[in-house]
Amino acid sequence: MKGMKNFFNPQSVAIFGSMKEGKTGFEIVKNMVEGGFKGDIYPISQSGGKIFGLNIYPDFKKLDIDLAVIAIPSQLIPPLLEDLGNQRVDSVIIISAGFSEVGNFEEEERIKQIARKYQMRIIGPNCAGIMNTENNLFASIEVRALSGNTGFITQSGALGGAVLMMAEELGFGFSKFVSYGNRCDVDEADLISYLREDPQTQVITIYIEGLQEGRKFLKEARETVSKKPIIAIKAGKYEAGIRATSSHTGSLAGEDRIYDAAFKQFRILRVDDVEEMFDLSRGLIYYPRIEGERIAVVTNAGGPAVMTTDKLEDLGLQVPEPSSTLKNRLKNLLPPHVSLRNPFDLLAYGSAETFASVCKAIAPEYDAIIVIFVPTAYMDSVRIAQAVGEAKKSIKRPIFACFMAGRSVKEGIEELKRYGIPNYKTGERCAKVIQKIVLQTLKNSY
Amino acid sequence: MKGMKNFFNPQSVAIFGSMKEGKTGFEIVKNMVEGGFKGDIYPISQSGGKIFGLNIYPDFKKLDIDLAVIAIPSQLIPPLLEDLGNQRVDSVIIISAGFSEVGNFEEEERIKQIARKYQMRIIGPNCAGIMNTENNLFASIEVRALSGNTGFITQSGALGGAVLMMAEELGFGFSKFVSYGNRCDVDEADLISYLREDPQTQVITIYIEGLQEGRKFLKEARETVSKKPIIAIKAGKYEAGIRATSSHTGSLAGEDRIYDAAFKQFRILRVDDVEEMFDLSRGLIYYPRIEGERIAVVTNAGGPAVMTTDKLEDLGLQVPEPSSTLKNRLKNLLPPHVSLRNPFDLLAYGSAETFASVCKAIAPEYDAIIVIFVPTAYMDSVRIAQAVGEAKKSIKRPIFACFMAGRSVKEGIEELKRYGIPNYKTGERCAKVIQKIVLQTLKNSY
Repeated sequence: MKGMKNFFNPQSVAIFGSMKEGKTGFEIVKNMVEGGFKGDIYPISQSGGKIFGLNIYPDFKKLDIDLAVIAIPSQLIPPLLEDLGNQRVDSVIIISAGFSEVGNFEEEERIKQIARKYQMRIIGPNCAGIMNTENNLFASIEVRALSGNTGFITQSGALGGAVLMMAEELGFGFSKFVSYGNRCDVDEADLISYLREDPQTQVITIYIEGLQEGRKFLKEARETVSKKPIIAIKAGKYEAGIRATSSHTGSLAGEDRIYDAAFKQFRILRVDDVEEMFDLSRGLIYYPRIEGERIAVVTNAGGPAVMTTDKLEDLGLQVPEPSSTLKNRLKNLLPPHVSLRNPFDLLAYGSAETFASVCKAIAPEYDAIIVIFVPTAYMDSVRIAQAVGEAKKSIKRPIFACFMAGRSVKEGIEELKRYGIPNYKTGERCAKVIQKIVLQTLKNSY
Repeated sequence: MKGMKNFFNPQSVAIFGSMKEGKTGFEIVKNMVEGGFKGDIYPISQSGGKIFGLNIYPDFKKLDIDLAVIAIPSQLIPPLLEDLGNQRVDSVIIISAGFSEVGNFEEEERIKQIARKYQMRIIGPNCAGIMNTENNLFASIEVRALSGNTGFITQSGALGGAVLMMAEELGFGFSKFVSYGNRCDVDEADLISYLREDPQTQVITIYIEGLQEGRKFLKEARETVSKKPIIAIKAGKYEAGIRATSSHTGSLAGEDRIYDAAFKQFRILRVDDVEEMFDLSRGLIYYPRIEGERIAVVTNAGGPAVMTTDKLEDLGLQVPEPSSTLKNRLKNLLPPHVSLRNPFDLLAYGSAETFASVCKAIAPEYDAIIVIFVPTAYMDSVRIAQAVGEAKKSIKRPIFACFMAGRSVKEGIEELKRYGIPNYKTGERCAKVIQKIVLQTLKNSY
């Protein structure tokens, strides 16, 4: 069977569909052009004319097409696929709906057979398209992803759109985006296998409702997690959820407990919702491993530190006291009245220098450090970020941050990013991320 | 004992502290002036001179002071309190630290006795001050709260600051804000009792680490929850957390399970973190009651609807099928292929009119409705918001929204707000809010 390369690295892309403003074809061409794709873009429509300065081709027979993106009515698709097959186009994305998801299994079977006949690979139908931020390929109607190191594969197009819009708001970037819809040919296993070898992708995230070929998926997943982590949202736990999934992608949601057990066995990190998926992705990109469960909290903010400590212990992690040797060392570093215990509450004495020196001093005794900082009138978040960032260079332990909150720490968080320190909205969310990475690390070291 | 009125509705406020830029006294005066307080503001400092066009008074003996805010070194405070007592000032906020939180129990006992001697009420010491958005009183160094209907009481000043900054980012407003610190006199029970009678406050939120007088608190809480809900974060569950709280507010965190049981019995809604506190507050302000646990999901977005359904069922709520009568009615309202089951997935047919008519048709059979909407190229979030908002007027059931995500739905969410419909970042977060309100309602109807 042919490979997937032309989906993500085509030299030329043909878009089939109406080129009237607001129509799907138009929107995809717009995304391709505005996104800055460097290869050839061929809008195909009987209308002819021009769009964004490009010729609209009524006839595509003489064009050299690497990737075809189809957004025409479903009943017109089989003959088009035959033509494309004869032209040796081997990568096709079908955006159009109207197949198994509305009970039209016959038409879907027909396109499947055409794909097989021509050794053509198809993503879709009933999908939202794909993106590769590396070469500015935005073959999709969705908002264009920012560049990043997380690959995202989704069975639900609507969820894909929502994720992209949430990510945009957060400044969160993706390496590749794929909405695969009814997966008449290319499925999640093929996509994971592709992303495993993609150098731009460090973390793979996936939203699934049910697998068609569980064994194939788990085989690919097993091979992948030894190279890079997979984060999964598996929806459709209950009968009501299953009702919804069968109504909208034509698949049957599987038995949830079986999935859960399989994910655990195959070291796929299951998360409950999209926010947790973002949180964990950002953590894993900076810190793929955390070697143990002894966590330190360094802070100038008592309340948030207590809440974080509660959450860490709820999740089975430890927040142990420093050794007496370390306590003595800290005593020399710190003003009187500062807590020499974990959480290390620096109170109003939490200057940039103190944050940095405490992090350095305690690092050897802990597996990860969370720095929680709430700015005061006297203390600037950028200086704290720089001091902790510089300290990080000599520390062999992951440092996470929770700078609270809003505009008062915006610049500090940007500075943290430059030092490769992920920041979380709350310490509780940071604790959840640390727990998942610790579990993953300890399991992988069996 | 005297009341609390002068804390929140003073005609004149004196601020004691250094009036040099960046110092606490200066920052409080700045907040008072920039916040637009209409009464008299008296900056008090031996320096004399002017600040923000106001006279700085070296002598305060002839001033008529309703509320004194103190930010001078701790050892100078007892003599000042004596002077204020002699002047019959009966409301005092002590921002300054240096008392029981650093082991200085003696000094704290001294100010307590002075307060008793003069029947003076004191908030603090070691606190971040108070706010009343109704009369623009910002007697605090923290970022000024927006106006709203949630009262917020916090034992941790740092947590208070973080909450205010998060709220500012979210556009979330408060009626009153109180950081009460070491509570040498006024405690959480007094504050709850005050907010119970405050017409601007519809929901009371509180962050506590430990109570000093549990019985008094629960008595006030019991009387309050029959009038308005109380949402509580109780931190300091574990030994490590207790270490932190005793280091920073000088209190001992209580046994968590006892708190949990008491909260349940007294119908205080416990939440795990600040984000959940915001979510639940916004829900309760619009819908103090949800009369049962039958929830409907109406959507154009399959994936997010399945995830929400999963969460609803995880939380013990029901997502039941419509009756066959209702199914028949829906069949006439909707295009073919649209799901007549709950979740009601309108697919691409989810026009503004369809959303509205489905909500109206199903309302009699469900206790609450969640509308999940992901915009497409053809559908504008403002129109959906207006249609659902208009429908809401004739529906006797709470409607919640989850418009996803970012800038694509920003205006739609503003429109929802005008119709009194709360919007949530994810359907899962919305599900958590509904569950808490349902539990509260069913418990209250014992």
